[in-house]
Formats: sequence, structure tokens, C-alpha cells
Amino acid sequence: MNITVIGLGLIGGSLALSLRGFQTHMIGVDKNPEHAQMALDLGLVDVVLQLDEAVKIADLIILAIPVDASRNLLSHILDLIPPRAVVVDMGSTKSGICSVVREHSKRANYVASHPIAGTEYSGPKAAFSTLFHGKTTIICEKERSADFALKIVEEMYKLLNMKIIYMNADDHDLHAAYVSHLSHLSSFTLGLTVLDIEKNEKNILNLAGSGFASTVRLAKSSPEMWNPIFQQNKEHLSEALTAYMKRLSEFKEYIETNQSQKLYDLMKEANKIGKIITN
Amino acid sequence: MNITVIGLGLIGGSLALSLRGFQTHMIGVDKNPEHAQMALDLGLVDVVLQLDEAVKIADLIILAIPVDASRNLLSHILDLIPPRAVVVDMGSTKSGICSVVREHSKRANYVASHPIAGTEYSGPKAAFSTLFHGKTTIICEKERSADFALKIVEEMYKLLNMKIIYMNADDHDLHAAYVSHLSHLSSFTLGLTVLDIEKNEKNILNLAGSGFASTVRLAKSSPEMWNPIFQQNKEHLSEALTAYMKRLSEFKEYIETNQSQKLYDLMKEANKIGKIITN
Repeated sequence: MNITVIGLGLIGGSLALSLRGFQTHMIGVDKNPEHAQMALDLGLVDVVLQLDEAVKIADLIILAIPVDASRNLLSHILDLIPPRAVVVDMGSTKSGICSVVREHSKRANYVASHPIAGTEYSGPKAAFSTLFHGKTTIICEKERSADFALKIVEEMYKLLNMKIIYMNADDHDLHAAYVSHLSHLSSFTLGLTVLDIEKNEKNILNLAGSGFASTVRLAKSSPEMWNPIFQQNKEHLSEALTAYMKRLSEFKEYIETNQSQKLYDLMKEANKIGKIITN
Repeated sequence: MNITVIGLGLIGGSLALSLRGFQTHMIGVDKNPEHAQMALDLGLVDVVLQLDEAVKIADLIILAIPVDASRNLLSHILDLIPPRAVVVDMGSTKSGICSVVREHSKRANYVASHPIAGTEYSGPKAAFSTLFHGKTTIICEKERSADFALKIVEEMYKLLNMKIIYMNADDHDLHAAYVSHLSHLSSFTLGLTVLDIEKNEKNILNLAGSGFASTVRLAKSSPEMWNPIFQQNKEHLSEALTAYMKRLSEFKEYIETNQSQKLYDLMKEANKIGKIITN
């Protein structure tokens, strides 16, 4: 089986590593020649080809590039693929890419997915084979994918030991706005705010403990990846930000006006997240 | 040496465990009888006594209770201690407690400190002996402590393998507002926002990955501990929240108005935190 991985970064590289042994000839595509060479050197892929060539000979094509690039490329890729080839994408937004190929004659060859896995690092060197193990993946609009396509993608995720959940694309994007995209924004913002004050107050980071490191971790994430995610999910994200800022204003007001009981109640309510997120 | 630990939670319990072998008879005080019994059962302390009794016979008294309780108790404790006894507190705010004992006749017996160590858990069962190892601790207003008092506390922190930094109390509180207290607030707020939307959107947490878990971790923190910290540090925290909300509004505006380059630049700037916070 020829597997073409487009985008040899954290996600694509980790997938390439994880799918080894799955009857595979692993073909890599990356517009950055340094990343392509690195992926070869690291043994992530067997060969690197140009996009069109790599797509035409593939049985399975994995799109692991920023969501704007995926949306722009998907129709072109579907135009080129053999009749029984399957295309799956890994993007963190689903409505945009689904709508752009809704009327494509080969829409059924495509499976829209989003594996909930990642780190704050990027590029081929960030890839590792256990990234997906035990995590959850989302498949959207399964009814628009052909059975053979869905079966291949489900088998792939099962090999990765992932739990598969099915959702419609808009629900996915709404949920992702709150539990993934919003936490990236709050983390980027925390990083910026502390860097701002540090310009005037030297050594402020002497007081940074493991709590700060945990909360600010996602501020190291790749702008190239996150910029198009925020753009594509702007309606839901705007709503999530409004809700977040409303809650933040409550905290601010209760602190400034010494409303101790209300402040306590807010925190006690927030503690309930601990029952859901245990690690 | 008699060491009295007031407050047998995460911090006090971990200190009690860590200071074993430091010529010690470990005396515990806790207003919660269940926690006191638990601390005995877990071997954190040798004996539990009432506050006044435990203070009168102590060589070293460690205050590891919420910052409002510490501020209220400190003068009373200084009234009771033997002439060469030393009192040290562990609180996350320093201006309030320092100002309340500034004119006390035994001010020199007291050392104001703040070890930068903790987890999102609380109570005696959360205590562990390596909590402080390799971390940083702050000592404030060292010039107001007697040499013998400072020496005891510095020896204690060196035994814990902590790096000691000296600051004035207001600088401490300003810095703590940004790198510690603000990250707790952003995390509490994220937890609340997601719990709010989850009431309408079931299974939203299917999309929660390790990034969300990391960013929301501090939302599990104890309201009993954090409420008085926020109250005592409200001026600096209000300033930090204003700065944070300003940056957050920029993100929101750039997302809503498709200002891709500005959004990219903000994230690229935030990435610089990665050079400072490496884990």
C-alpha cells in the first residue's frame, strides 16, 4: 500500500512513524525542502516526491498541513487521485474543508477527521510514534464518505489505538472552539501579558512555578498552524471568547469590590472541571 | 529542635516530611481535626497540639495556612513565642502580612517568605517530600529580620535544596500577580467557560486533549487558599487582569476582522515565552 503523507511535521511525521508495518510504502511531501530532507534522515518516510506525483500513485493520502493549505489543496488532490484512493485530513477545523468539497465528484473518497493529539512543538523532529496512542479522534460527515473510504480510515485509527467519535462538522467546530482553540488563545495571551510586564520588571520570572509553566505551555504553539485555525473558526471562537471574557470580568469585579463569597463560589464551580479532567 | 507546623496541608505537610532529620520534634497544628488526625496517621508530624501550646514550646514555627489566616494570626504568635524562636510564613502574598507586624516588638523573629512550589491538590494527603526540591523561594524584607532568624530560615531552605532570592514585599506581590495569580485566574476562567457551554453542548469534552488539560489544571486549585490571595493582592492583580484583557481583546479583534498578519505577529511574540519556560 502506498501512503502519501502531505506535511511532515509533528502530526504527519508521527503518523508516518506509527503506520509503519501497515503494508506500507511511505511517501512524503513537504513544501519545505529542509523538512523533507529531515523526514528522510529521521526515517519518517521512504521517499519524498512532488505533490502531484505523490498523490497520483497513492492508495491513502494523509493531509497534515495547516487548515488553510488543506482547504486550498483538497479539491486539486481529489481531481488527481485514482478511483479507489482515500484522502483523510487531520485539521482542527472541519466546516470549512467539508464545505469546499461538498459538490466534488470524488467527495466520497474523502474522510474528514481530527485526531485530538498534539504537543506545543512542531516540525519533523517533534514527531514520535506514540503521539496518538489511547487518544480520541473525531470523524465528521461520515455519511458523505464512501464505505470503503471510511473503513480504511477507521482501520488506520484503530491501529493507532484511538477511540473514534462521529460528529457533524459544525458541532465539531463549536466544541473545538471551547476546549481546544480557546485554551490556546488564553495561553498565548498569558504569555504575551507576562512578556509585556517583564520589559519593565526584570526577573519577574523568578516567581514562575510549575503552575505558570503548565498554563502558558500552549503559548509555544506554531503560529503557522494556529493562525488559519483561528480564522476558519472565527464565529465559534468569537462566541467562546465573549463567554470567557464575561467570566473573567466577573472575577475582576469580585476581586476589586471585595466580594469574597462570590469569588469563592466562582472558584468552587470551576473546581468541577477536576472531576472531568483528571490528569 | 521543636518545629511547629501550622496548617498540615500540601505545603505544611510537605515541609514536615522534608525537614525530618533536621534535629526535629515535629509538632502539628490544624484547626480541622480530620486533617490533624490524617497528618498523624501519615506520619507527617509526631504530635498534634493546640495552637498556643504548640507555639510556646517551638524553636521554629512554620505558617502554612491561607494568607488571611496567617495575617490574622502572626501578631498573636509573635506575642507568645520564646525570645529566640523564629517564625516563617509560606504565603503567596507578602505586603499585607509584612505591614501588619511592622511595629511588633518581635518583628525581627519573623521571616517573610514564599516558596514557589505547589500543585493543584490540597490537604495532608497531597503532601510529598520532594515538593520543594530544586525550586526557588523568595524572602522579603530581610533587613527587618534578625540575623539569627534569617540564618535558620536560610538553612531550612538550603536543606530543601531551594534557590533563595531576596525581594521587597511589594515587588514580590507585583511579580506574583503576573506569573502566578493571573495564571490561576485564567485557568479558573477557562474551566468555568467550558463548564458553562457543556450544560448545553453535551460531550464537549470529547474534544479535550492534553493541551486543554494543561491549561485548565490550576482550575482545580483550592478556593479556600486562593480567595484570600486574590483579595490581598487585588491592586496588582487588577492591573494584571486589565493588561491580560487588553491583549485578549486584540486577539478577538484580529480574529473577527481577519487581520491575519497581526494575529500571526501576536502569536510569534507570545512564542518567546518558550525561551524562558522550557518545560
